[in-house]
Amino acid sequence: MGMFDKPILVFQTDFTYKEGAVSAMYGVVKTVDRELEIFDGTHEIPQYDTWSASYRLLQSLPFWPKGTIYVSVVDPGVGTSRRACVAKTANGYYIVTPDNGALTHVKREFGITEVREIDETINRLQTTRGVAIFHGRDLFGYTAARLASGIITYEQVGPSYPVDEIVEHSVLEPEIEKGCARGIFEIDDPNFGNLWTNIPLERFREAGFSYGDMVHTRIFHGDVLAFEDNVLFHQSFGFAKKGCPMLYNNELMKIAMAVTQGSLSKEYGLEYGPEWIVELSKP
Amino acid sequence: MGMFDKPILVFQTDFTYKEGAVSAMYGVVKTVDRELEIFDGTHEIPQYDTWSASYRLLQSLPFWPKGTIYVSVVDPGVGTSRRACVAKTANGYYIVTPDNGALTHVKREFGITEVREIDETINRLQTTRGVAIFHGRDLFGYTAARLASGIITYEQVGPSYPVDEIVEHSVLEPEIEKGCARGIFEIDDPNFGNLWTNIPLERFREAGFSYGDMVHTRIFHGDVLAFEDNVLFHQSFGFAKKGCPMLYNNELMKIAMAVTQGSLSKEYGLEYGPEWIVELSKP
Amino acid sequence: MGMFDKPILVFQTDFTYKEGAVSAMYGVVKTVDRELEIFDGTHEIPQYDTWSASYRLLQSLPFWPKGTIYVSVVDPGVGTSRRACVAKTANGYYIVTPDNGALTHVKREFGITEVREIDETINRLQTTRGVAIFHGRDLFGYTAARLASGIITYEQVGPSYPVDEIVEHSVLEPEIEKGCARGIFEIDDPNFGNLWTNIPLERFREAGFSYGDMVHTRIFHGDVLAFEDNVLFHQSFGFAKKGCPMLYNNELMKIAMAVTQGSLSKEYGLEYGPEWIVELSKP
Repeated sequence: MGMFDKPILVFQTDFTYKEGAVSAMYGVVKTVDRELEIFDGTHEIPQYDTWSASYRLLQSLPFWPKGTIYVSVVDPGVGTSRRACVAKTANGYYIVTPDNGALTHVKREFGITEVREIDETINRLQTTRGVAIFHGRDLFGYTAARLASGIITYEQVGPSYPVDEIVEHSVLEPEIEKGCARGIFEIDDPNFGNLWTNIPLERFREAGFSYGDMVHTRIFHGDVLAFEDNVLFHQSFGFAKKGCPMLYNNELMKIAMAVTQGSLSKEYGLEYGPEWIVELSKP
Repeated sequence: MGMFDKPILVFQTDFTYKEGAVSAMYGVVKTVDRELEIFDGTHEIPQYDTWSASYRLLQSLPFWPKGTIYVSVVDPGVGTSRRACVAKTANGYYIVTPDNGALTHVKREFGITEVREIDETINRLQTTRGVAIFHGRDLFGYTAARLASGIITYEQVGPSYPVDEIVEHSVLEPEIEKGCARGIFEIDDPNFGNLWTNIPLERFREAGFSYGDMVHTRIFHGDVLAFEDNVLFHQSFGFAKKGCPMLYNNELMKIAMAVTQGSLSKEYGLEYGPEWIVELSKP
Repeated sequence: MGMFDKPILVFQTDFTYKEGAVSAMYGVVKTVDRELEIFDGTHEIPQYDTWSASYRLLQSLPFWPKGTIYVSVVDPGVGTSRRACVAKTANGYYIVTPDNGALTHVKREFGITEVREIDETINRLQTTRGVAIFHGRDLFGYTAARLASGIITYEQVGPSYPVDEIVEHSVLEPEIEKGCARGIFEIDDPNFGNLWTNIPLERFREAGFSYGDMVHTRIFHGDVLAFEDNVLFHQSFGFAKKGCPMLYNNELMKIAMAVTQGSLSKEYGLEYGPEWIVELSKP
């Protein structure tokens, strides 16, 4: 079996690259099998934020070759009783992760066909027995490497458990009718300060909105009105004036909001999460 | 054709690694051709700063193997009418980039022999049609991967256009005469706080300056004198006292200025750009 | 000789990834030998901090395959008379680094069997002669690549010198007796704000401490008491209450201190270094 017969490993964590943890974790993978290819997903998930971990999987996973093994380690409960698992998605990927909500979006949008709890008695780096706080290196990375390498089969990861038992965050469904769409800011682009709603472009169009329209936009933080204005909806940033808020179709075909060459989140004090309600209507 | 017959892809963007965009972009490359090798140039170009993108290409490109394909995505005009192109440099590289000034320095210093506009009707990821804001993933990365893989030839990128039409930033030439050199701070080292002029070491020496000299250094921000002192010129930082400003020969054989184990830009409030004039003379 | 017969190169520096330096350095490696595999250790070592460089080698090196060449470039004395060297460790690795204290921890814990000074007349990128400030690209990376590639043998790096001459930081030994352990905060986890002592778990246990114990913890900055409280000692963060300080066994089997889902160093103003004394005793 050549190197390209073995799946790619992509890692996302909240470790950052500031110290030696990612290096140690990748070293374990290469020690299991020198031929494995490793990529950084991101190591800058906000700390302990299993919601963001879940969303980043949704954002990136489907662009990798089928069979890719995505390792996600945002693990506030490391070393406690939360399950460590490997999930198999309906669209052909594996996700190695603590079962702590990180599978929420992938389960909803792509589907998970099978999930197995990692058997720590077998699938654990033996030289670091006694360490309970670095499962990225000792358990998740190690198991992903052995799976990618063919040392273990998927069945040998450990016992399967019902897909229904996967821990999920609650997710609000968008409400869309003629001339009106209501959703939440589901995630941000932390670099550019854009905020992404959970309203799909297609349904937004069916509700009667088109590129070039001005859209009456109200944003609530709980009950408090945090933003209200008529905002241009267009296909890319360059169609709005520099410094102006605008609505656009984001990279996942959902409605998002930005300030052209500015930062919507910083300039308007807006954030994401279930309590950030977005209402879009005809002006 | 083996993996090492295919050129390396190096990516630079202003995306940062904070979220899933780089991962999605690289996933597309590996989906086009599993054998392609990908490297990070940097993903921390200042946002929308096509000048810095241009300088970073100059700084890094010539150290890679001939044939390397450098993908540069600093793209404030994404989805608008700016050209998306692949340029062929006189020293043997390809650059895939929006044609928005990012080719300025490479064109001046290495030369560009040919440039082609990417034909979006062919060289575009089909599964994301409808998305206009992520050409790094959908157009530039995808086209670079197909070119590196041999799926398309350079001619099949799209129609060529005159090299003269390449968008360029205006660049000030340094003025050097006996005992005096005048230039600009052209770029910074954002980590160490050093600032790099556009004055070549060789011409500076011809003007009569040698390692060990004290150099009368005046820095203007437009008309305002921002710094004036006699400063040691030497070959490396360790020859100056810790905390002292000094002039040195930088990694591209141009005169640069630093504070030994300090940050020149922060401590003295200096920046880079055409309005930051540096005058060096005999004291 | 195939690509997997050649050792992996892992790089750690204080360059950051903000500009083109890492890219140029890696480009040189791939120009020496296209087949070489490169990994990022970290490029975020605190500037000029040779102590941290030393600790990060200890933390990460032993998890990589035997034979791996680790390149460490934290080099405040670049271009001056400090030695540039390649050390061979007793546990089977090579470290390419300025000899400025970066070998301290590896020498103490793993042992160094041989060290050679890089002969700059041979093992130096020739096209950048004249540049004295970027040995990461021109000397260390280049030499590591030639060594990994088999172009030079270890003996051809340059003349060996006595291992005793390796520059070392002074390190305080922990003092442990029945019911009491005394050490220092030796390093931090800069992301999560944890602080790691130099007290080994095994000796701490022999002194009579067990998971679940409350431990009287006093931290001094020199003579000044900076922290005093009874703190839970357990195997992972999740056993302590969120927001509470706790002691745990870290990834290198040493006692460390954290705030569960918080930042110990920020919230309590604690740092690391020889003057940060930690005293642990029975309450």
